[in-house]
Amino acid sequence: MDAIRIGMIGCGVVGQGVMRILSEHADTIQRRLGSALEVRRIVVRDLAAVRSAQVPRERLSTDVNDLLADPQIDLIIEVMGGVEPAGSYVRRALESGKSVVTANKALLAAQAHPLIELAEKKGADLYFEAAVAGGVPVIRTLREALASDRILAVRGIINGTSNYILSRMREAGLDFAAALAEAQRAGYAEADPTLDVGGGDAAHKLTILATLAYGAELDVAAIHCEGIDQVAAEDIRFAERFGFVIKPLAVARQLPDGSLDLRVHPALVDQKAVLASVGGALNAVRIDGAAVGPSFLSGLGAGAMPTAVSVVSDVIDAARNLHSDARSRVPQRAFQGAQVSRMTVQNIAEHRCRFYLRFSVRDRSGVLGRIASRLGEHDVSIEQMVQEGHGGNDPVSVVILTHPAREGSVRSALAAIDGLGDLFEPTRALRIEEG
Amino acid sequence: MDAIRIGMIGCGVVGQGVMRILSEHADTIQRRLGSALEVRRIVVRDLAAVRSAQVPRERLSTDVNDLLADPQIDLIIEVMGGVEPAGSYVRRALESGKSVVTANKALLAAQAHPLIELAEKKGADLYFEAAVAGGVPVIRTLREALASDRILAVRGIINGTSNYILSRMREAGLDFAAALAEAQRAGYAEADPTLDVGGGDAAHKLTILATLAYGAELDVAAIHCEGIDQVAAEDIRFAERFGFVIKPLAVARQLPDGSLDLRVHPALVDQKAVLASVGGALNAVRIDGAAVGPSFLSGLGAGAMPTAVSVVSDVIDAARNLHSDARSRVPQRAFQGAQVSRMTVQNIAEHRCRFYLRFSVRDRSGVLGRIASRLGEHDVSIEQMVQEGHGGNDPVSVVILTHPAREGSVRSALAAIDGLGDLFEPTRALRIEEG
Repeated sequence: MDAIRIGMIGCGVVGQGVMRILSEHADTIQRRLGSALEVRRIVVRDLAAVRSAQVPRERLSTDVNDLLADPQIDLIIEVMGGVEPAGSYVRRALESGKSVVTANKALLAAQAHPLIELAEKKGADLYFEAAVAGGVPVIRTLREALASDRILAVRGIINGTSNYILSRMREAGLDFAAALAEAQRAGYAEADPTLDVGGGDAAHKLTILATLAYGAELDVAAIHCEGIDQVAAEDIRFAERFGFVIKPLAVARQLPDGSLDLRVHPALVDQKAVLASVGGALNAVRIDGAAVGPSFLSGLGAGAMPTAVSVVSDVIDAARNLHSDARSRVPQRAFQGAQVSRMTVQNIAEHRCRFYLRFSVRDRSGVLGRIASRLGEHDVSIEQMVQEGHGGNDPVSVVILTHPAREGSVRSALAAIDGLGDLFEPTRALRIEEG
Repeated sequence: MDAIRIGMIGCGVVGQGVMRILSEHADTIQRRLGSALEVRRIVVRDLAAVRSAQVPRERLSTDVNDLLADPQIDLIIEVMGGVEPAGSYVRRALESGKSVVTANKALLAAQAHPLIELAEKKGADLYFEAAVAGGVPVIRTLREALASDRILAVRGIINGTSNYILSRMREAGLDFAAALAEAQRAGYAEADPTLDVGGGDAAHKLTILATLAYGAELDVAAIHCEGIDQVAAEDIRFAERFGFVIKPLAVARQLPDGSLDLRVHPALVDQKAVLASVGGALNAVRIDGAAVGPSFLSGLGAGAMPTAVSVVSDVIDAARNLHSDARSRVPQRAFQGAQVSRMTVQNIAEHRCRFYLRFSVRDRSGVLGRIASRLGEHDVSIEQMVQEGHGGNDPVSVVILTHPAREGSVRSALAAIDGLGDLFEPTRALRIEEG
């Protein structure tokens, strides 16, 4: 069969990984696909910035038209990242009927639906396994392996930087700032870590997962998002004492009334839960299906090579469709539900779960009683309480685990407790994720 | 689009699960596939044995010709199991160009290559996700998600019965017989458990995984296979003391010289390894790719519903090919390597690993010295030694962990030690699996 002719936009870390796999695994790919994959043209902003031995200089260009306007090119790999101009390039490629493989989570989180519709209209394929969890095949699992099942919940650790930082805080007793500095030195965190530690990156990926799992047209702004920077070394220690580990979770659940529960935040998970065992910078996703039960995937969520494996495997899939003239074989709107417009997102105030609450109090007579009373007045019932340190003017830590409670009620109770004048600092509240 | 017309052969536990998913998830499937899936005819041996509410009586038949000779039927689901007559039916279906979805591990382990060739010749699809690890999408991951990568090793817990028994021995301190009896009462083990606890079932599945990972034409007889019935409660206790858990492993690795290392046996794995955390009857597979690194999948490996999810998801995939006229879109021989004929299987005597050795000795002067000398004479070096119990005529347990050693040398040393007259019973040797 004829080689598939590819154009690539962007040639940074992932792009160079793609070139390396295409070169080092050329025989394997030829055997499994039945044809070669040939990168004809690579468009970059700065020719001088590309120094990889696997990138032939004569195929580099700075003009994206060399690629988008070339009828000889069958398929576009987009690995430049960012919503624009990448989005315009992807749209132009789909417009001209070229299939697109992208690793661009920001673009998909913002425009999955219009891009999917455009691909469908033009009979082209749009693949994006690498946009979520790097080398972990969670998109393929949702689109294909579980196509026959109804998804009850998707819970994942999908930001490796946050997982690395919380893991190091736990292992080495570091505080957040020290663990972040270590992650930056080790190359796991950027100089400006906001998107990772603030939860924005995970929210982008969760938007894509929920779109696939529930066919919902979602905006990333609909996701309740909290970063891990609110977690103190003390919280990790207390969590451990109660049998929990604090993990950076992204959760998408369909509630009995059909609405979606969408959240990104650090949460306490049972030490025995599989997600608790996912350390370092690993990513992991647990999917609960109505029929298949719990299903679990993990692996390297970032890095040039794992991400490039997902990109090139998507290219092979799209190339199989080109060879058999079966583009849009998986209906692009397969994961769009009939119920798209009816699907609402639960207000976080209505979320119910157990809570971990850490109060930093003055050790005054009756303080525990006052806290317990305010919680009770707001229908928040106490499951366990622990007090550490005592005496004088030093702050005393009181940690309470609640029974399942409505989040809005917990917030109201905490506001009332803040008003008592017993606290040294605002109360730390973390959710406990079951299952 | 027109409904896909299906014939099903067999209607036991998995077949009834398939009917239940087709009925309960009909809307979801219609939306994701763009057409309905319609089971027109179900062939069973005994009409009276089928009592499920989801199976319409008027579609049942005892004559397989009703199905295989019907040109209206597009696709066959084979869930009767066993090599024959299932194999003949699958061949006849493929001969007439019908696509086949099967959950039959015994058939595929015996005839994967001729069936794959036949499917390719006739332009039909052959899907078999459910044949290995039930609801865990390991076949799809090897065929598609990692199509761009080179597989270094596949290590799995792919027999749920064995995992359940070893897990119960560990949790409750049971011996093998008691844990097996419990598994039988709980429905996790058959009255005749030989195929499960003896490793034969896992060997079938490993044959399929190695075929996919390495494109090798393999015979199940090439796999070195040991059951878990050799594991004593004492071994589990000692393993724990050294930081290990005993797990029923199936391993396929490509060695640097290109030959394959294929083994099914209980092995000690580090308590911190992900496979160690896979308890109960769960299945799990760890795949190491040259580029993607370690990748891990787990879930329910058996049971009507998880297995049926894999069957129906395969049907959806095959149906997409029928709709887009792209059967054999994934070249059926995609996973057959050019090197098929050159691939050899390593003799187990050449396998190198660390070993756990438990000697049951008479507490006589010099016995440890004699054991250590014999090991040394055969180039087996001791890493750790522990002795438990002492005195008189009671047996004393001596456990040795070796440094990495050649298996043949270990066997020769153990034979020499057996000849010393110091032992109460034959020595227990278990492999330690790294990584």
